[in-house]
Amino acid sequence: MDSRTRLLDATTALLADRGYHGTGMKDILSASGAVAGSLYHHFPGGKDELAAACVRRAAEDVAVRIERNLASLRLGEAVDAFYVQSAAALRESGFRNGCPVGTPAAETTTFAEPMATAVADAFALWRAALARGLGAHGWPDDEAHQTASLLLSLFEGALLVARAEQSTAPLEVAARHSRALVEGFSSSPRPSGSRPAGRRRP
Amino acid sequence: MDSRTRLLDATTALLADRGYHGTGMKDILSASGAVAGSLYHHFPGGKDELAAACVRRAAEDVAVRIERNLASLRLGEAVDAFYVQSAAALRESGFRNGCPVGTPAAETTTFAEPMATAVADAFALWRAALARGLGAHGWPDDEAHQTASLLLSLFEGALLVARAEQSTAPLEVAARHSRALVEGFSSSPRPSGSRPAGRRRP
Repeated sequence: MDSRTRLLDATTALLADRGYHGTGMKDILSASGAVAGSLYHHFPGGKDELAAACVRRAAEDVAVRIERNLASLRLGEAVDAFYVQSAAALRESGFRNGCPVGTPAAETTTFAEPMATAVADAFALWRAALARGLGAHGWPDDEAHQTASLLLSLFEGALLVARAEQSTAPLEVAARHSRALVEGFSSSPRPSGSRPAGRRRP
Repeated sequence: MDSRTRLLDATTALLADRGYHGTGMKDILSASGAVAGSLYHHFPGGKDELAAACVRRAAEDVAVRIERNLASLRLGEAVDAFYVQSAAALRESGFRNGCPVGTPAAETTTFAEPMATAVADAFALWRAALARGLGAHGWPDDEAHQTASLLLSLFEGALLVARAEQSTAPLEVAARHSRALVEGFSSSPRPSGSRPAGRRRP
């Protein structure tokens, strides 16, 4: 594996675990086995540029995973699969392994431009991928975008609480509800408050 | 205001904005107007003890607010009021003002014991306050605890995404859904997937 990829892999894992300020240059060099000269060769802007590149790469990887899951599985199964993988990764890491975007996102007010933009763009990319996936299953645009926003917020919040509590219970409750949310659209009535009156169904 | 309260107020605001590692001792002394000797007099464990005390105080304040809102308002109105206040505070702070527990919670893997425990306890306290509030409106225990977990995760996630995107839209979508969640229980049918079969209703 080339040194650029090793730097990206190691720093992505550190960001998901400790966030941006909790990840020092020494941690990055130690975990990647790279030397400082190599880091500055690949990322002249240093840790900020490297971290932003990690967030952008993770954003694209997860967006591809979302689109592939939603295209190839039933919606409810796709949601389940995503939560099952995330809960297993969290448990196997001793409740350290968070979201490589969500964990540093809490520090957003302290970021310089490249990192702040990368984090905001990542959330927008995932919401758009979710909305496109729902749209492909016949959901009207507005409903798809609102549900995509809910799925994203609920996942990020449940992962945050689960890590802090060292328990997968918040993820399990969120998974059941997210599954009901995407399955409820075409097959079941929902509370009137969750759907503007007169919205058509596929 | 005494110096202990000034230290707690200033540090709570810094934690909600920048998280734990983003908040330096200089920031704390500058924002509180306290001297280092005063900080170590009140909090011999330094920043870690002070931050844990902030999280515990904020946890209790918010739990009281949750219980008061749920006791005195209709459930849907109580949920709305909480989101409206949070969205206004976020907007007025230039999208800096996060949750004094949720913002540092992302860094949970880097915490020493007092801070890690304070953050986990805060989430448990809020979930219990929400569940008690729902229970007082006639919700069965299990349903109340699961919905409390959803309300907490969805709020924390929506606030995280809203801060990163500098937009209150994720909070507005989460508020509508949370309102429907608490109002849907007693008045509307819900998707079968979100409620185990045979669960009684009040």
